[in-house]
Amino acid sequence: MRLRNKPWVPELMAAHPELVVSAQSGLKGHWAQRFTQPQLPIQLEIGSGKGQFIIGMAQAHPELNFIAMEIQASALGMILQKQVTLQLPNLQLFLGDGAAVTEYFAPQEIGNLYLNFSDPWPKTKHAKRRLTYPSFLAQYQQILAPAGQLRFKTDNQGLFEYSLISLNASAWQFDFISLDLHRSERAASNVQTEYEQKFAAKGQVIYALDAQPQTMPGTSE
Amino acid sequence: MRLRNKPWVPELMAAHPELVVSAQSGLKGHWAQRFTQPQLPIQLEIGSGKGQFIIGMAQAHPELNFIAMEIQASALGMILQKQVTLQLPNLQLFLGDGAAVTEYFAPQEIGNLYLNFSDPWPKTKHAKRRLTYPSFLAQYQQILAPAGQLRFKTDNQGLFEYSLISLNASAWQFDFISLDLHRSERAASNVQTEYEQKFAAKGQVIYALDAQPQTMPGTSE
Repeated sequence: MRLRNKPWVPELMAAHPELVVSAQSGLKGHWAQRFTQPQLPIQLEIGSGKGQFIIGMAQAHPELNFIAMEIQASALGMILQKQVTLQLPNLQLFLGDGAAVTEYFAPQEIGNLYLNFSDPWPKTKHAKRRLTYPSFLAQYQQILAPAGQLRFKTDNQGLFEYSLISLNASAWQFDFISLDLHRSERAASNVQTEYEQKFAAKGQVIYALDAQPQTMPGTSE
Repeated sequence: MRLRNKPWVPELMAAHPELVVSAQSGLKGHWAQRFTQPQLPIQLEIGSGKGQFIIGMAQAHPELNFIAMEIQASALGMILQKQVTLQLPNLQLFLGDGAAVTEYFAPQEIGNLYLNFSDPWPKTKHAKRRLTYPSFLAQYQQILAPAGQLRFKTDNQGLFEYSLISLNASAWQFDFISLDLHRSERAASNVQTEYEQKFAAKGQVIYALDAQPQTMPGTSE
């Protein structure tokens, strides 16, 4: 969702260079140095919104390092406010465009890549903007480490149907699919986004999948 | 579902050899001769139950030939009762086991293969009995003509999740997925089974997919 402009954000970001990274930082291949513990590969969320998911994940998994990637400074500023208080050593915030991840991350630098409630872009003419469009999947494949997964959640039926077809067509392998995540075996360990919490409370289903790029027999890196 | 034994069925079947085929008939590769018009490839439903779907399809598509395959004589007898009256020239009934289709059909003899509301076999130890288990998919692949699809409908969430994963793992390509068939673009042309009609009337969703075996680049028959 688009947030109202928050005039205090640039100043807060400038005051915390130890917590926030900009797209011009040139950290490709060197993200580990931003964390206290060089726990590789790194977990990346594209489109972190107000950050409830990525903060919850970072708290639940101190043994992993996380990057919250968000294109909207206003949203990233809200995550930063929380992180200034929490000072989680395994969470870095990144102001950048999820549509260009190969510019920011080196091959195999990312462990799991999280997409939560991404914009569905329901019109067919906008299919190329969906974050599970084949050109994006090809980028994810480049930055994911071996066994690294795309972990995708959405309430949008059309986007989930599209994503199943798109991932299949790009020869990704499904490791997990739930057509009702909150009533699945994974419900207990599921860390919810703000949006997910509100939406599921109304009784709507949440769809989820884990997938990884398939290594073709006889091919290598 | 399992039906009560119907003592009149064997006699009715014996009286209509022009409409019913038994598993011992040896028609593999020669099914076309059972139809007035040699319209190839043939459309096959595995597990036709009481036959509402296959009869509706045969009526809607006189340009195609259909086989209703059913392992229960009691169920096939109910389809036969209707077919004795209707005398559809493009429908043959086949008393046989859907788990052994390569015994009954030759390579490329089948156009589309329909699985409707198949037994979900929910226990993991029974996964091998699910009609979308990889060993069955391998059989379907052998009998499907080029561009022939598996067309699968179910109301069972677990079976649909399993089938998406199984088809993907067997490198089938998804041409269509709906997580709510009755509110999709295909609702108007959808021919319902008896079970589907009752179940959907209660407001439950019906899942559907079309998939075809993927021809690997550089491989042929």
